[in-house]
Amino acid sequence: MDAHPQRHPIVDIRLTPVLISDPPLLNVQGVHQPYTPRLVVEVVTDSGVTGVGETYGDTKYLELARPYADSLLAARHELSDLNGLFTLMNDLPVDDARVDHSVDVGGLRGVQSADKLRLSVVSAFEVACLDALGKTLGVPVHTLLGGKVRDSVEYSAYLFYRWAEHPGGAGEKDDWGAAVDPEGIVAQARRFVREYGFGSFKLKGGVFPPEQEVAAIRALAEAFPGHPLRLDPNGGWSAATSLRVAAELADVLEYLEDPASGTRAMAEVSAGTDVPLATNMCVTTFGEIREAFLGDAVQVVLSDHHYWGGLRNTRELAAICRTFGVGLSMHSNTHMGISLAAMTHVAATVPNLDYACDSHYPWQSEDVVVDRPVFRDGRLAVSDAPGLGVALDRDALDRLHRRWLADDGTLRDRDDAAAMRLAPGHEEWRTPTLPRW
Amino acid sequence: MDAHPQRHPIVDIRLTPVLISDPPLLNVQGVHQPYTPRLVVEVVTDSGVTGVGETYGDTKYLELARPYADSLLAARHELSDLNGLFTLMNDLPVDDARVDHSVDVGGLRGVQSADKLRLSVVSAFEVACLDALGKTLGVPVHTLLGGKVRDSVEYSAYLFYRWAEHPGGAGEKDDWGAAVDPEGIVAQARRFVREYGFGSFKLKGGVFPPEQEVAAIRALAEAFPGHPLRLDPNGGWSAATSLRVAAELADVLEYLEDPASGTRAMAEVSAGTDVPLATNMCVTTFGEIREAFLGDAVQVVLSDHHYWGGLRNTRELAAICRTFGVGLSMHSNTHMGISLAAMTHVAATVPNLDYACDSHYPWQSEDVVVDRPVFRDGRLAVSDAPGLGVALDRDALDRLHRRWLADDGTLRDRDDAAAMRLAPGHEEWRTPTLPRW
Ligand SMILES: [Mg+2]
Ligand SMILES: [Mg+2]
Repeated sequence: MDAHPQRHPIVDIRLTPVLISDPPLLNVQGVHQPYTPRLVVEVVTDSGVTGVGETYGDTKYLELARPYADSLLAARHELSDLNGLFTLMNDLPVDDARVDHSVDVGGLRGVQSADKLRLSVVSAFEVACLDALGKTLGVPVHTLLGGKVRDSVEYSAYLFYRWAEHPGGAGEKDDWGAAVDPEGIVAQARRFVREYGFGSFKLKGGVFPPEQEVAAIRALAEAFPGHPLRLDPNGGWSAATSLRVAAELADVLEYLEDPASGTRAMAEVSAGTDVPLATNMCVTTFGEIREAFLGDAVQVVLSDHHYWGGLRNTRELAAICRTFGVGLSMHSNTHMGISLAAMTHVAATVPNLDYACDSHYPWQSEDVVVDRPVFRDGRLAVSDAPGLGVALDRDALDRLHRRWLADDGTLRDRDDAAAMRLAPGHEEWRTPTLPRW
Repeated sequence: MDAHPQRHPIVDIRLTPVLISDPPLLNVQGVHQPYTPRLVVEVVTDSGVTGVGETYGDTKYLELARPYADSLLAARHELSDLNGLFTLMNDLPVDDARVDHSVDVGGLRGVQSADKLRLSVVSAFEVACLDALGKTLGVPVHTLLGGKVRDSVEYSAYLFYRWAEHPGGAGEKDDWGAAVDPEGIVAQARRFVREYGFGSFKLKGGVFPPEQEVAAIRALAEAFPGHPLRLDPNGGWSAATSLRVAAELADVLEYLEDPASGTRAMAEVSAGTDVPLATNMCVTTFGEIREAFLGDAVQVVLSDHHYWGGLRNTRELAAICRTFGVGLSMHSNTHMGISLAAMTHVAATVPNLDYACDSHYPWQSEDVVVDRPVFRDGRLAVSDAPGLGVALDRDALDRLHRRWLADDGTLRDRDDAAAMRLAPGHEEWRTPTLPRW
């Protein structure tokens, strides 16, 4: 018996912050800025294999990723020691000023605790290690997660109210035009179906008064009878408003996502409707599960490997949901093909992925991977190539990194309210206090 | 990018039932028979790598393991497709007559549902696949579980009331002598400490009236002041008796294990004592978790990879316990070195393994592995060799299998009550209705 199994210490780590183009998508807090910061993590082993991961690129994540990378290198961290990634991270201090910001954009993803910040950084390293480990061992990432239980993963069309252009014509242009009413949303949905074949639809709400968003969902239900529909106002409504909307849309909603803010309000809504409530705001950490599940506050959790701490933690979340009879879906915000590949691998291995996954990806015109993934019939094929099955486009990475370097700091931290103030008539915009309606 | 990762179909499976020697250990249902059935599972890949696993060897497990092996071979099941092991098993029918036996020895391990029977069989195949996969990839099993977080795993001394010999002098002899009172239990504990260095003790109770077992725990507390002590009457007491014992031993018990039978009775006991309650009887499947955790019926769950469905399911159970603030320990019944290695690998990877693991292993004089593991300072070192780090002793396997073949059927299904009836004065013994006291 060979007592000396393969070892592959990590000997180099490259952290590359980038700014990627983002359309003027609206939500309860404001509008996406023209560019969104993301961080590309590359780990390199002593045998020269490189693995890649991706996470949030805001300053607070970079501030933690750098010392974390240093500590991994100092330890010559073993590539396969995935559990050890968490042990090492837990030793790093987090600046108190960086957490518990109830009004920053993080609010769209729930609490901003030090542990969640840590997990959001670890996740990119875990994905990079899984990618490198898969390449080293000659197996796809889904095999490292126990094997795919499906060959393709279904995604949902992610519909947004949006402007035609960013304020002042900033950023990249696209040909989607404005969508600020039911007709605009239906037109957007039709194009999503035409181009990608999506079979279910999620509308990001919390932008207009609830009755207008109810009308948009009604218009979608008429245009696409029988197709699953979701509405997500990001906690923008009171419990009373939530219950009213739930009653009005009970016959067409697959689920209602974060209608109200916080576990207590969600539990109140849940008690008054049969429409399943989903969340990526009140249950975003393992510590929040107990209260929410015991109080039957939510019936569906939207996983997100970024802030849950990677693909293996996502599988653990899935096991918990399965055990407690809570449904599982998948959350997404602005991301590139690296994270999309990671999402697809883990989604392929989870037996109880009960709903089509969210993905912002169709809105992203820029990426750092070659051979960008393409949705067909609303699905992505699961790659069987070693690792994630993505390759970095170094020219694109360099170009997007130079954009980040050139930025004067105004775009390095996502702030949906700041961009809002640049739009005519919105100069006084502030991140609204929730509930807004 | 290589689009053709390594594939290793399973091309042969060997199922070898064995009978292994077991001392006359007493519990609430009776006494261990002279020999206990176990099943050794070997999976062989097309490249000639063999992986090994172990589970219960009673007829009902064999009846399911054989068609399961056939279906894996028919599918040329991919070695790394661990999730697929469950999918395939779920398609197999289970004989209704084989489940829901509330009075068989399975009662010591809780419900006997069809799913639990399936998981108990899958577990041996999952361990065998992990062993073969580790050997194929050149990594230890703990690496396939994300990496060890400790280099050795602590075990607890598992003390039993016992007779000096089996009824009629059947089976193999040992030199431990009888232990039927506090002095005998303390002497047994001293020998365990001397030979293996164990630092904590669990007494299997439910054998004598509670006051005698309280006296034994008191004697242990005096002999080993400050050492963690546990008592497990396998649900033999009423809630009232349980509460009385808990009050009497509150100052010395690390936890009280399954004092009463069933989640409802456990919740009643739990509400009346600060002594943590542990279980491997009322929470033995994922389906039982919700009610028990919501009702705060137990504070510690004893995992067991056999009936929870393997090492990866055990890690998911650990994640659930961690999330709900429930402690985690590890259960054991009669097993050989294959399962001990499997237990040690998974235990090494679970951050919240809060207690020393149980193991019957020191009572086992026979094994099918070469280089039998040795407890030092109450711990087992975690193997870093590829796979489980065990090698089969084919002569021993053959000898123990021939014993199984030669048996007339009376020992092929463990029955602690049957052996009891052979002892002088116990001819009328029946598996007692619980609670007994
Ligand atoms: Mg959401
Ligand atoms: Mg027990």
